[in-house]
Amino acid sequence: MATSIGKKLWAIAEGYIPPTSVGEGRALESHETVCMLNAGDTDAHVAITIFFSDREPAGTYRLTVPARRTLHLRFNDLEDPEPIPVDTDYASIIESDVPIVVQHTRLDSRQAELALLTTMAYSEG
Amino acid sequence: MATSIGKKLWAIAEGYIPPTSVGEGRALESHETVCMLNAGDTDAHVAITIFFSDREPAGTYRLTVPARRTLHLRFNDLEDPEPIPVDTDYASIIESDVPIVVQHTRLDSRQAELALLTTMAYSEG
Amino acid sequence: MATSIGKKLWAIAEGYIPPTSVGEGRALESHETVCMLNAGDTDAHVAITIFFSDREPAGTYRLTVPARRTLHLRFNDLEDPEPIPVDTDYASIIESDVPIVVQHTRLDSRQAELALLTTMAYSEG
Amino acid sequence: MATSIGKKLWAIAEGYIPPTSVGEGRALESHETVCMLNAGDTDAHVAITIFFSDREPAGTYRLTVPARRTLHLRFNDLEDPEPIPVDTDYASIIESDVPIVVQHTRLDSRQAELALLTTMAYSEG
Repeated sequence: MATSIGKKLWAIAEGYIPPTSVGEGRALESHETVCMLNAGDTDAHVAITIFFSDREPAGTYRLTVPARRTLHLRFNDLEDPEPIPVDTDYASIIESDVPIVVQHTRLDSRQAELALLTTMAYSEG
Repeated sequence: MATSIGKKLWAIAEGYIPPTSVGEGRALESHETVCMLNAGDTDAHVAITIFFSDREPAGTYRLTVPARRTLHLRFNDLEDPEPIPVDTDYASIIESDVPIVVQHTRLDSRQAELALLTTMAYSEG
Repeated sequence: MATSIGKKLWAIAEGYIPPTSVGEGRALESHETVCMLNAGDTDAHVAITIFFSDREPAGTYRLTVPARRTLHLRFNDLEDPEPIPVDTDYASIIESDVPIVVQHTRLDSRQAELALLTTMAYSEG
Repeated sequence: MATSIGKKLWAIAEGYIPPTSVGEGRALESHETVCMLNAGDTDAHVAITIFFSDREPAGTYRLTVPARRTLHLRFNDLEDPEPIPVDTDYASIIESDVPIVVQHTRLDSRQAELALLTTMAYSEG
C-alpha cells in the first residue's frame, strides 16, 4: 500500500537559527526544521552535513526515518557530533539510502508575532 | 482550450495544524491547505494518504477535482476515514488519475497577527 | 550577453486576493503577484488563464514581458476581460511563446502587520 | 567527503528590497538574500545579473563561493558595478562555473513585526 516517492540527495541553501524567542513553549520557540517523509516500506538511513561560511563542514549527523513515517527534525536539536550555533548562516545536505522527500521550514519568534517560511529542498539522484 | 499540465504523484513533507487561532471567522482561522489545479478536460480522482511520526498512515481520503477547476482543500476539513489531529506533525501523499498541480499553504493565526507559508509540492510521475 | 532560461508553461495552484488591507499605500496593500522574468533577447507574449472552484475559467489575459525585463504583475490589476474577484480561491496557468521564469508572491495586510509567502511556480515545456 | 550537488544556472523572478525597516540591528534590517551552497571541492566563481522592469540589466556582479562553504549574500550589499535601488521590482540570474544550490529569502521589517519568505530558485544546466 506504501508509495515510494522522492530522491536520495537533497540540499537546503538557507539555514539560520534565530538567537532568541519571545514565543512561549516549545511549539512557538524559534526553530528551523527539516521535514522528511519516507513513504516507502524500508527504513531510511539519513546522513546530514552542515556547511558554514567560514569553517569546514560539521557532521555527519546520522538518523533514521522509519518506513511509512515522517520526521520533522529541528536543527536546534542536533547535538552529535556538535550543536549548530545560533545566529549563524549555514546550509545543509541530506543524504538517504532510500528515496525520501525533504522540505525546509522556519518559525521565527524573535519578535512578538511569529513569521514562517517554507520550501521544498533541492533534489537530485 | 484547456491545458493539461502537472503530475500524478505529489508529496508534502511538512504538515501541522496549529491548535488554536485568534483570527476571527473562517478566513483567518489557522489552517493548512492543499491547493490542487486540474487544468485538463477530465475530472481528477484524487487519493490522499497522511503520514505521522509514530503511527501507521491514515487514509485513504478520496475526493474529486472537476475538469477545469481548482480545489483548495483544508486538511482541517478531512473527516473520512478520520480527522487529522491538531498540534501533530504529519506529511501527505497526493495521487491523481490525471495530471494535476499541487501547492501547499499554511495560515497560522495562533498569535494576534497571521503568518503565511507556501511551496509547490514535490512531484513525480 | 542575455541568457535564455525558463519554460513556456507554468502553473500556480494557489491564488487568493485578501478582501481588505490595513497597510497604507500601494506597496503595503494586500496583493497577489505573478513575477515573470524574460532574460532572453526576444519579447515574451504571455497568456494567463484563471481557474476557479465553481465556474468556468476566466481569460485569456494577454500581456508582454519585453526582452531582458522582469514584470511583477498584480492579479488585482487584471481587468480585461474581467477583474478577479477578491476573497475567492483561484489558480492560474501562464503560457509564453519564449522561455520565462515565473514566481508567485503574496503580501497579506489584512491585519496590522503584514505576512508574506512566495514559491517558484510549477513548470513544463 | 564533499558532495557535488546543484546546477550552474539559476533564476529568481521575484526581487524587492523594502525601503524602510523598523527592526533594530543588521539581523532584523529588511533584506533580500540569495543563499548559495557550494558543497563541492572546487571554488565556485559566480556572476549575478539583475533585471528590471524599465531599464537594461545591471551587472555583472562577481563573487566567489569557496569549496565546501555557503554564502548568504544580501542584495542590499551589492555595490560594484552599482547598488540595487530600494523599493524597485527586480529579478536575478545567477551563473556559476561549478554546480551550486541557490535559495532566495526575504526578511521584511517595514512594520513592527517581521515577515519572511523563501523559495528554491529555478535551475537549469
